[in-house]
Amino acid sequence: MFAEIITIGDEILIGQVIDTNSAWIGQQLNDIGIRISHITSISDTKEAICEALDIAKKRADVVFITGGLGPTKDDITKITLAEYFDKNLVFHDSVMQNVKSLFAARNITMPEVNKNQAMLPEGIKVLFNENGTAPGMWFEEKGMPIVVSMPGVPFEMKSLMLNHVLPLLCEKFDTPTVLHETILTMGIGESSLMEIIDDWEESLEKDQLKLAYLPSSGSVRLRISGVDRDEDRLREKLERKKKELIKLIPEWVYGFETQKIEEIIGQLLEENDRTLSSAESCTGGFIAHLVTSIPGCSTYYQGSVISYSNDVKINQLGVEKDVLLQHGAVSEEVVRQMAEGVRRMLRTDYAVATSGIAGPDGGSLEKPVGTVWIAVAGPNRTISKLHHFGNHRENNIRRASLTVLNDLRKEILRDT
Amino acid sequence: MFAEIITIGDEILIGQVIDTNSAWIGQQLNDIGIRISHITSISDTKEAICEALDIAKKRADVVFITGGLGPTKDDITKITLAEYFDKNLVFHDSVMQNVKSLFAARNITMPEVNKNQAMLPEGIKVLFNENGTAPGMWFEEKGMPIVVSMPGVPFEMKSLMLNHVLPLLCEKFDTPTVLHETILTMGIGESSLMEIIDDWEESLEKDQLKLAYLPSSGSVRLRISGVDRDEDRLREKLERKKKELIKLIPEWVYGFETQKIEEIIGQLLEENDRTLSSAESCTGGFIAHLVTSIPGCSTYYQGSVISYSNDVKINQLGVEKDVLLQHGAVSEEVVRQMAEGVRRMLRTDYAVATSGIAGPDGGSLEKPVGTVWIAVAGPNRTISKLHHFGNHRENNIRRASLTVLNDLRKEILRDT
Repeated sequence: MFAEIITIGDEILIGQVIDTNSAWIGQQLNDIGIRISHITSISDTKEAICEALDIAKKRADVVFITGGLGPTKDDITKITLAEYFDKNLVFHDSVMQNVKSLFAARNITMPEVNKNQAMLPEGIKVLFNENGTAPGMWFEEKGMPIVVSMPGVPFEMKSLMLNHVLPLLCEKFDTPTVLHETILTMGIGESSLMEIIDDWEESLEKDQLKLAYLPSSGSVRLRISGVDRDEDRLREKLERKKKELIKLIPEWVYGFETQKIEEIIGQLLEENDRTLSSAESCTGGFIAHLVTSIPGCSTYYQGSVISYSNDVKINQLGVEKDVLLQHGAVSEEVVRQMAEGVRRMLRTDYAVATSGIAGPDGGSLEKPVGTVWIAVAGPNRTISKLHHFGNHRENNIRRASLTVLNDLRKEILRDT
Repeated sequence: MFAEIITIGDEILIGQVIDTNSAWIGQQLNDIGIRISHITSISDTKEAICEALDIAKKRADVVFITGGLGPTKDDITKITLAEYFDKNLVFHDSVMQNVKSLFAARNITMPEVNKNQAMLPEGIKVLFNENGTAPGMWFEEKGMPIVVSMPGVPFEMKSLMLNHVLPLLCEKFDTPTVLHETILTMGIGESSLMEIIDDWEESLEKDQLKLAYLPSSGSVRLRISGVDRDEDRLREKLERKKKELIKLIPEWVYGFETQKIEEIIGQLLEENDRTLSSAESCTGGFIAHLVTSIPGCSTYYQGSVISYSNDVKINQLGVEKDVLLQHGAVSEEVVRQMAEGVRRMLRTDYAVATSGIAGPDGGSLEKPVGTVWIAVAGPNRTISKLHHFGNHRENNIRRASLTVLNDLRKEILRDT
């Protein structure tokens, strides 16, 4: 069975608002085995809405519509749907009471225009909206897909979906299970991965599974997906193929599903009662930002020295002036001294450091833009590696940060 | 004239990825007077792509496609478009050289599979991708809309749009001029702004201009827009209304257009030959990250001490232990000592500091989550302020960082 999403509103088309509703709806439906085949964003005009419904009704079993349910003149979804389904608007007292109570709770007199919100198409299922004045609407007519109309305000839409729409869908459709397993890799490109796992990928077909490569800057996620009426059988197939995959690329797998590398190292440090500090040159605080984006990081993270200038490298991190002059700031010697320096100064078990040329300027023939030295200092040893990322400043900062955190992950695992 | 966007990829439909590309493309096109009428997200199958093109070609003058251009098997956009336009694939040596040089720069042997990326449909315009291995493609055939295919990786797509697609579109179409003036404000909410500028907003109608409030965490952008065939007249109207607006809210305006606060303070520091350092507790490196995201910042930025733990505050920043124990880390006394300490240690003209409770835990009745002290130390004085942001960790980190950089901006202007 197939579902579609139609989002209504000019603000999405001109890019003033990013449509986050569709991704959320897609996830929820996917979890109960309903596949979204199309997401369409359209203008808030009667013509656009009717055209989108005409197209969707040929393909879909269920159509989810968000947006255009407010009380003002530019909100035309309800009236358009009533016309499309040839239904009169009738007064719903329970909706009126809800609208009134929402205004009363805010100590505001209800504007006249909100009375309209209690007028709803005849014979539909009204989905009570406890967070807002516009109820959801469930149209179920012969020869048509089910059409569910919801407000575009994310938290109103979400509570309508969770409290009303998803339970109704589960009741209505006996859907197969859809499951995914996502394996996170770092340090290897999409095409190199493919060369290694090509045969394994071919073998997925026998189990009716599918693979998707999802690259983002610095990492490639591998997602195995399957659909089956037998959930246990599907789980077994996915688990088996996942294990096979990991065996092929063990050194590049750093995590699973939606994990972030900063979350993974946070867990490892916490579990092993270890502490961390950082010394950043080219990454300029981005490592610290990633690490401190995790709530509760203060139990293992002491802090960082962002040594953008050589003076700070020498005075705050104890990098030797001679070494710095001889090898330059972007060198193995300096990045090791930075890691060891901050580890000593901030008295932590581990420390990571970066020194490189983020760009767009500052490169040379010998050390072009994208050249980055990274180091991890731990209780037993210090490791250092040279990387060549690319020409894009933001990307270089991001990749260097993720890479050094991944090396830290490996060092912690090695030590425990 | 109308344009459409088609985004290809199951990861969007199952909600694993939020489609941010479309909003960005919508904004860019809107700026040159091209209106997006539909955004459609589809599965990466040949059938779905052909069906979407069949529908779009009846409505649109230009169709933008993102995604599905990688070298792996699940990437079928190129081959599908070649079939749709009935074109053979031919070898493009310049693309091959670019792919090779990208791998060479990273010291990686090019996998065989990447050779495919130099095979492109005959007779199309190839759009050079300096940031990735997949070039963009511009199809222009009789009886069809222009079809532009780009990679889905945001920074690759963006540079293709800016460097190739937008200039080609402007050359091709004679669209009316659409101009915007964006005024950036900080420290005042949307509804308070509205109360002050209400009359002025009403007056825009006479000049056929429109205002949009674009709030983001910590700042509200005010965008005045107009459409006119007479560019000079439009410019004059916008300039006049912009000046009127600034006069109404001078203390809250910090910049214009797409300027970022970190860019503005960078310019100010550079122009006045001043240097900066930072000491961050609750912002955890985000200030340093913002400042160092600006190319060339090493001329004015010395570095930062991220003092997540009290030890680091005492040992690296010279915060007095007694003061810390008496007032707590989140206090006016400590944040002032942090700013003054880092300014002294890193020998800079200015220093900024933050200390607060980013959340979600760590709050108390007296100092709830969202409580943040910020300080700016300069050659003449140190200022400090207390803020109460909110409950959202990421948002607190962001708002505290932007706020202290804006205070720094005011201090530099005061001193010069």
